[in-house]
Amino acid sequence: MDGAVGVVHTQTLKLPQPLALDCGRTLPSVTIAYETYGTLAPRRDNVILVCHALSGDAHAAGWSTTGGESARDGFGADARDGQRGRLLGWWDGMIGPGKAFDTDRYFVVSTNLLGGCRGTTGPSSINPETGRPYGGDFPVITVADMVRAERAFLDVLELPRLAAVAGGSLGGMQALEWAVRYPDQVDAIIPIASTHALEPQGVAWNAIARNAIMADPHWQGGHYYGTGRAPLDGMGVARMVGHITYLSAPSLAGKFGRRLQHAGDIRYTLTEPEFEVESYLQHQAGKFQQRFDPNTYLYLSRALSYFDLARAHGGGQLRQAVRHVRARTLLISFTSDWLYPPSGSMALAEALRAEGRDVTLEIIDAPYGHDCFLLEEDRQTPLIRRFLSH
Amino acid sequence: MDGAVGVVHTQTLKLPQPLALDCGRTLPSVTIAYETYGTLAPRRDNVILVCHALSGDAHAAGWSTTGGESARDGFGADARDGQRGRLLGWWDGMIGPGKAFDTDRYFVVSTNLLGGCRGTTGPSSINPETGRPYGGDFPVITVADMVRAERAFLDVLELPRLAAVAGGSLGGMQALEWAVRYPDQVDAIIPIASTHALEPQGVAWNAIARNAIMADPHWQGGHYYGTGRAPLDGMGVARMVGHITYLSAPSLAGKFGRRLQHAGDIRYTLTEPEFEVESYLQHQAGKFQQRFDPNTYLYLSRALSYFDLARAHGGGQLRQAVRHVRARTLLISFTSDWLYPPSGSMALAEALRAEGRDVTLEIIDAPYGHDCFLLEEDRQTPLIRRFLSH
Repeated sequence: MDGAVGVVHTQTLKLPQPLALDCGRTLPSVTIAYETYGTLAPRRDNVILVCHALSGDAHAAGWSTTGGESARDGFGADARDGQRGRLLGWWDGMIGPGKAFDTDRYFVVSTNLLGGCRGTTGPSSINPETGRPYGGDFPVITVADMVRAERAFLDVLELPRLAAVAGGSLGGMQALEWAVRYPDQVDAIIPIASTHALEPQGVAWNAIARNAIMADPHWQGGHYYGTGRAPLDGMGVARMVGHITYLSAPSLAGKFGRRLQHAGDIRYTLTEPEFEVESYLQHQAGKFQQRFDPNTYLYLSRALSYFDLARAHGGGQLRQAVRHVRARTLLISFTSDWLYPPSGSMALAEALRAEGRDVTLEIIDAPYGHDCFLLEEDRQTPLIRRFLSH
Repeated sequence: MDGAVGVVHTQTLKLPQPLALDCGRTLPSVTIAYETYGTLAPRRDNVILVCHALSGDAHAAGWSTTGGESARDGFGADARDGQRGRLLGWWDGMIGPGKAFDTDRYFVVSTNLLGGCRGTTGPSSINPETGRPYGGDFPVITVADMVRAERAFLDVLELPRLAAVAGGSLGGMQALEWAVRYPDQVDAIIPIASTHALEPQGVAWNAIARNAIMADPHWQGGHYYGTGRAPLDGMGVARMVGHITYLSAPSLAGKFGRRLQHAGDIRYTLTEPEFEVESYLQHQAGKFQQRFDPNTYLYLSRALSYFDLARAHGGGQLRQAVRHVRARTLLISFTSDWLYPPSGSMALAEALRAEGRDVTLEIIDAPYGHDCFLLEEDRQTPLIRRFLSH
């Protein structure tokens, strides 16, 4: 049932210590926005950390009444955001009673990522040293930094151990980083539609998206807050690029074909959408411009391009990088996902198996591309429930 | 041999009549930039019209000394542009003595497309009604309009009949339009890496590219000429999108992998390229910004998205659209071309065959994506020579 965990309020928590980052800099003050679903067991052994992707936020399940635009993405999202002023969490289909991440059994924690724009410290936050937003002075962060922030946040909640870390895309990268960085503190990880390192084509798409934002003169080196201007046009283009890479060519063809906006014929216009797919892109860009911060897009995009488990932890060797992993691992990928193709999960499975680790690889034959991790809830659910029940 | 047709000068010719367009408007004055290679036979029966793609120009073969940047694209292009001030034509590997389009036998004609920015009338040309460049007032054109302009141009040269029309991508669309529109005037067509109608994903990529240009505040509704500003940043992003769609993911992985610009490690920067593939994209965008007009990009991109042989000529039925074609047809496509996938050529071959037409379909197993039509010269050459010799 949609929103079965009920109405949820995003909370915030300030980390007690500064956060040291990969780049050598330290964030003096970090706030984490988070939500929880389900009940913490007395032995505190039922905690699942859910990590969001580039455009997500802490609101993963249930209804939020904070207003604004939902972080739900994908083809099905619009229809299910219908209830006025009540926004469904981005992974609501996966989190709740009887769902993949079963809140009758697990205490599910979701945070907004470091660098985010929905409550957690990021480039739009006030730099305590200047009293103004960081903007382009925010340090360049990594997936490891996000995971450090999550670790420090869970320390405050006195949750030393995780039954599982799960997430799709950039969220799956965090799950992998958790297993490598904190091997004794994670029982299981579930990286979905993710990879140990983005393919060069994915690196290119991300670079193009960032270029679109930074080429917008309203970006102003990242210091656009308070200027009355923001690089929303550039971010709109970035979002369009993202959207098409998240979908498969056949799913686009199936949904839109070459149907025209005005059924009669073309209207000989450069500036107006002529095809339904063009109109869809504009609609998606417009929605995203209302809810997301361009600088956050830049920083998270950079972090996910950087992510390279083998380079960071194995001297270039993936097997070497995962040799201390102890978490049981469930990898899920989708045949039509050309941005995070199954080959990444296959390489991870091979490396983990070669090191004698407990790994399950599930490749789901599904048509919606990378967005499958948000859409194919029914097919992921039994795999995840079975894996977690072992 | 590179540049075997020698040094070539682009010529221009003014059409004697105004050109009526699909959109209902008429261009009062049209100039066509063109080059020719080889010798016209006394019976004028050896003419091959070569049509360029979105970013090409009339300089298809030999060396040009006009300066600027070459319209040669693809991985191999840079290395072969080496000779200072001498620019190799974009299809030099295919046009020349003994090559696919053999100038010992054929008189090859190449024009800059209507709407272009390299000598043929386009949005940067002076509107005779105002004395100022058309800019955003240039009429929205179609592939059929380009072909009408080519027809009118060849009339001036007193070349009523073509032995063949050939081209890749948007050039192949022109070849198809020729065969449908002027069935009695074309003996053969060779559409390469082309289609009867762009796939919805391709429509989306083109829309994104146009959005990037039009979102650039320097675009000014297309009236940027003479303002000291032009939407070059937006066109740079558009070009980056184009480049990645022209290449295959494996070819990008093979050429760049995830290699860093500075071999040691990442440098934690948003604004500088970190990966070689990011640097390559910037380089390509920069080169393109020096040689191409953003408005031309918009108009040609719109035309190729519109192109739909079945809609325009067959009431939505491809077979109906090609029923009057008389030209022998050689379709070439490439397995790794995901922008103009072989399925388009297969659908065309099926429709032509169903109508009893003489059609040959060659699907070349090659790794470089859409750019194969510019790169796989050695593999196209025997197919084209054999086809033309029949």
